[in-house]
Amino acid sequence: MQIAFVGLGKMGGNMVRRLREAGHDVVAYDRDQELTAALAAETGARPAAALEELPGLLEAPRHVWVMVPHGEPTASTVTALGELLDAGDAIVDGGNSRWTDDEPRAEALGARGVHYLDVGTSGGVWGLEKGYCMMVGGPDEAVARLAPILDDLAPETAEASRHVLGDRGWSHVGPSGSGHFVKMVHNGIEYGVMQAFAEGFALLRKNDPDLDLATVAHLWEQGSVVRSWLNELAARAFEQEGTDLAGLEPWVDDSGEGRWTIEAAIDHSVPVPAITAALFARFGSRGEDEYASRVLAALRNQFGGHAVKRAS
Amino acid sequence: MQIAFVGLGKMGGNMVRRLREAGHDVVAYDRDQELTAALAAETGARPAAALEELPGLLEAPRHVWVMVPHGEPTASTVTALGELLDAGDAIVDGGNSRWTDDEPRAEALGARGVHYLDVGTSGGVWGLEKGYCMMVGGPDEAVARLAPILDDLAPETAEASRHVLGDRGWSHVGPSGSGHFVKMVHNGIEYGVMQAFAEGFALLRKNDPDLDLATVAHLWEQGSVVRSWLNELAARAFEQEGTDLAGLEPWVDDSGEGRWTIEAAIDHSVPVPAITAALFARFGSRGEDEYASRVLAALRNQFGGHAVKRAS
Amino acid sequence: MQIAFVGLGKMGGNMVRRLREAGHDVVAYDRDQELTAALAAETGARPAAALEELPGLLEAPRHVWVMVPHGEPTASTVTALGELLDAGDAIVDGGNSRWTDDEPRAEALGARGVHYLDVGTSGGVWGLEKGYCMMVGGPDEAVARLAPILDDLAPETAEASRHVLGDRGWSHVGPSGSGHFVKMVHNGIEYGVMQAFAEGFALLRKNDPDLDLATVAHLWEQGSVVRSWLNELAARAFEQEGTDLAGLEPWVDDSGEGRWTIEAAIDHSVPVPAITAALFARFGSRGEDEYASRVLAALRNQFGGHAVKRAS
Amino acid sequence: MQIAFVGLGKMGGNMVRRLREAGHDVVAYDRDQELTAALAAETGARPAAALEELPGLLEAPRHVWVMVPHGEPTASTVTALGELLDAGDAIVDGGNSRWTDDEPRAEALGARGVHYLDVGTSGGVWGLEKGYCMMVGGPDEAVARLAPILDDLAPETAEASRHVLGDRGWSHVGPSGSGHFVKMVHNGIEYGVMQAFAEGFALLRKNDPDLDLATVAHLWEQGSVVRSWLNELAARAFEQEGTDLAGLEPWVDDSGEGRWTIEAAIDHSVPVPAITAALFARFGSRGEDEYASRVLAALRNQFGGHAVKRAS
Repeated sequence: MQIAFVGLGKMGGNMVRRLREAGHDVVAYDRDQELTAALAAETGARPAAALEELPGLLEAPRHVWVMVPHGEPTASTVTALGELLDAGDAIVDGGNSRWTDDEPRAEALGARGVHYLDVGTSGGVWGLEKGYCMMVGGPDEAVARLAPILDDLAPETAEASRHVLGDRGWSHVGPSGSGHFVKMVHNGIEYGVMQAFAEGFALLRKNDPDLDLATVAHLWEQGSVVRSWLNELAARAFEQEGTDLAGLEPWVDDSGEGRWTIEAAIDHSVPVPAITAALFARFGSRGEDEYASRVLAALRNQFGGHAVKRAS
Repeated sequence: MQIAFVGLGKMGGNMVRRLREAGHDVVAYDRDQELTAALAAETGARPAAALEELPGLLEAPRHVWVMVPHGEPTASTVTALGELLDAGDAIVDGGNSRWTDDEPRAEALGARGVHYLDVGTSGGVWGLEKGYCMMVGGPDEAVARLAPILDDLAPETAEASRHVLGDRGWSHVGPSGSGHFVKMVHNGIEYGVMQAFAEGFALLRKNDPDLDLATVAHLWEQGSVVRSWLNELAARAFEQEGTDLAGLEPWVDDSGEGRWTIEAAIDHSVPVPAITAALFARFGSRGEDEYASRVLAALRNQFGGHAVKRAS
Repeated sequence: MQIAFVGLGKMGGNMVRRLREAGHDVVAYDRDQELTAALAAETGARPAAALEELPGLLEAPRHVWVMVPHGEPTASTVTALGELLDAGDAIVDGGNSRWTDDEPRAEALGARGVHYLDVGTSGGVWGLEKGYCMMVGGPDEAVARLAPILDDLAPETAEASRHVLGDRGWSHVGPSGSGHFVKMVHNGIEYGVMQAFAEGFALLRKNDPDLDLATVAHLWEQGSVVRSWLNELAARAFEQEGTDLAGLEPWVDDSGEGRWTIEAAIDHSVPVPAITAALFARFGSRGEDEYASRVLAALRNQFGGHAVKRAS
Repeated sequence: MQIAFVGLGKMGGNMVRRLREAGHDVVAYDRDQELTAALAAETGARPAAALEELPGLLEAPRHVWVMVPHGEPTASTVTALGELLDAGDAIVDGGNSRWTDDEPRAEALGARGVHYLDVGTSGGVWGLEKGYCMMVGGPDEAVARLAPILDDLAPETAEASRHVLGDRGWSHVGPSGSGHFVKMVHNGIEYGVMQAFAEGFALLRKNDPDLDLATVAHLWEQGSVVRSWLNELAARAFEQEGTDLAGLEPWVDDSGEGRWTIEAAIDHSVPVPAITAALFARFGSRGEDEYASRVLAALRNQFGGHAVKRAS
């Protein structure tokens, strides 16, 4: 099948590789034209020099998969494509857009007859080899059109899930916005799970700095209740970095989905204390708790004459 | 190899089955003698009618694996066995004892020449088929003696962990108490991971009651970052119970390890907010937050004249 | 001075009473005309039968204080007034509007020459007697115009704060939106403080159901570090309701500012775990944690065969 | 009345001053003999050179108030005094001892006929001037004996609490241990309240670094719902240190009662999320969250190839 990819970074580039291996005809475009050329050379994808070239390089009905950072880059790309494409064509936003962007986007494109799918995509750098977990939102017709692509981007479904998902491990979870919503919640859960492991490993280490945490993580993969891919990655990380992780700064970024999960939970009055603890821990890792700590130190000093550390 | 099992419940019973399948000579004892007889009949284990019989049914050096509830039952069983056994014999506590019990227990037994191992055991009802994840604490010599039993209770090590753990998926994590400590932290993590999933599924459901959560959980097993055994179990649960889980009361027990994890973290000044959120959510599920809510309602009424719901 | 009040509920009504006692000429309007008539009869305020009457009942430059529920009621009232008033007139939003509403509102009114102040107001039903704590946002000129009104709504400044605030206990905290922002954070803090007290009283009660909590709260007012108005109210509540608070349902509403505080904190990457715990406790009091608890019960049942309570 | 004080630090020294002003005959002892001599010279208290001198300096029945750090210092002092004193004498532990110490201590002393009171004392450095808030645990008879001392250490009861507490602001809250238990919970609440204010001020500052927080805190004292002594102290702190608190390190100690509150809550299955958030924030201020942050950074790097900051 024929598809264009816009955005050839870690995720988009590997998706093109995976689709090319499966034999699809892929047009590849990144505003970084060296990246575009290199990927084209490597995979046999057809390079495009500009968004404007895409329509001419594809047969109608066309399919364009957008895989650029969420927020303004996705917004401007989708808007531009909407103007370049024709009725009957389809745009897929495979990035981490906020789900509230999808309905207005679907409506605006729909007014021109252009289909729109929101595909929440998990799998990170491992997706190339293992396949991507895709949560697909949008109208049935467009989903059906993209199915051959989704089939090859997805992993083969694990035995235990085949009676529910069929052979290929992706799913159409609902109307516009639902793909990104389910992906957002997935990431919220991911925050909480990571935080739980981080807390546990921190306690193990504080209790016994000599305990080899790579061994513990490997051990937990052997039939324990917490066996999981994140624990598997912890085992890898401890092997590579050492139990002390001394080569890493204690600084943790966040990219939006955790925040949105909590905001959606607040809108729905659903308590999400573990996921929130995870987000706040990341803020704290970046020093964002320092001012509050100064306030606490100042108050203790006021009422109890407790010693404060004076900044020198 | 020869070993006795004391406690033939869900965990102990299945461990006997697994060891019998592997050809070990097992003496089985539970104070519920019907259970003892049935398991003996089923597996060919030799039944014992009383703790006092065990020494006579085993050749020295003897090995007795205790698999009874933590707290008083384990304490009294280990003490009694300590008096029945001889120097050179070994006792394994495979239950969920608090790790702080282990050092005094090991010392008391050691004074009589009896070895003591604390084995944190994870795997639940699935261990029979898949093998148990065992975190072993205690002196090298006793661990070496029990190795054939541990080998057969454990799963075959997964490929990715074999260079660290060897062929059989258990590990000797340190001196007395360390097995239960690592298991306790495992369970603390388990609390946090379960809570993160529970929060995420709750948000998905509140946002769209028609979303089929069995499908979502199955989907997340296909290459997503949160793929894990707990998510696999969520998929099974939603399939069996329906997305609404209407057949289940929102009531969640806890069995001690979560509390101990937090207490150990407090002792070590390690923040564990996600694990703590998980424990408090369980307390809340049992109505333990009701009085505090009454206080809040009373305060709002006092300052703002806000409506309160009067109990009728 | 002359001013009109729109909204004569618990807050607005008492503010009119306080201003009338201070001798101001107040025009009072509520869409509930019985309320309007009663308050006019009680206080000598001049009643208005419709928003449209207000301009004719006031001399230019006019001042109208809006004290209606936040959200749509405030929005529609301010919009309507904006069209009724003339350049040089001023509107005060004294309610709990979201601070993000203020800048657009100020701009829209400013385009017509109408001034706009956002006044966060704390004090609840006690404000009539003690005066209102007012956090004022908006341009200097309009603040200066309203000062005589603010002076009389506010309490006399406590001795210890007079060198900062002057004689009357209100303050101009910044440009449009800042009054509601500071008030929002005030309420976020209020959530956290209430939750801390609720947790503490709950622990005291669980530890010793016979401890008289009215006595404890009264005691804490005598020189303890936690002495505070909320604790004073707790003392009153326990006296009125009894330590068991049995007459109150454990059901706690929330009115928006707590949610907004957390959302603002997330936007600013500031961790607010105690305030968030307070909001989630309120959600929990309304049963919003039940589905997550069902998920936890289902998972425990899956991996451990743990007993679940079946709904009957 | 006659009483001896052991421990003349910030709390004990000021209590002696307050009792001397009220005309009591005070014997003062601190192992720092310069401190002892200085306080004796200042207040007219009679100095003691050793614990062993105390019995000879007091008429039977004797009263000794111990005001030394909790843990070993209090334990060894109380034990030593118990051996020096006679049946009918009384010891008061006015420090922050863990409440679980009190019952065994009362029993051990009771076996020798020595009375024991546990007095939780709040008020900090302000107690000298304002009086101390005292939560008194122990048998009626001993409380009655100490009443003249408690009366003069306490503040005059505020009008609004006199019908409950009588004229002097202290209270007998229950049997041995209850004084320290109620004080412990008081401190737990204090942690939560401080944290709520710290979070709120941090959000205000991040949103608008130019907002003068001394003004805000002063303003909130004028009739707002959060008016409280801690907020008053915040106003003082911001005035003294500036809104930026730049002279203070973001480092916050904790002295035990917060930890014990949470442990007691866990024992009683009472959720205390806000108080726990406060304790964990303090741990975080001391860098105890850093290892967990390294784990999170390592995991993000593993699954997403996310950039980590390499320690240089």
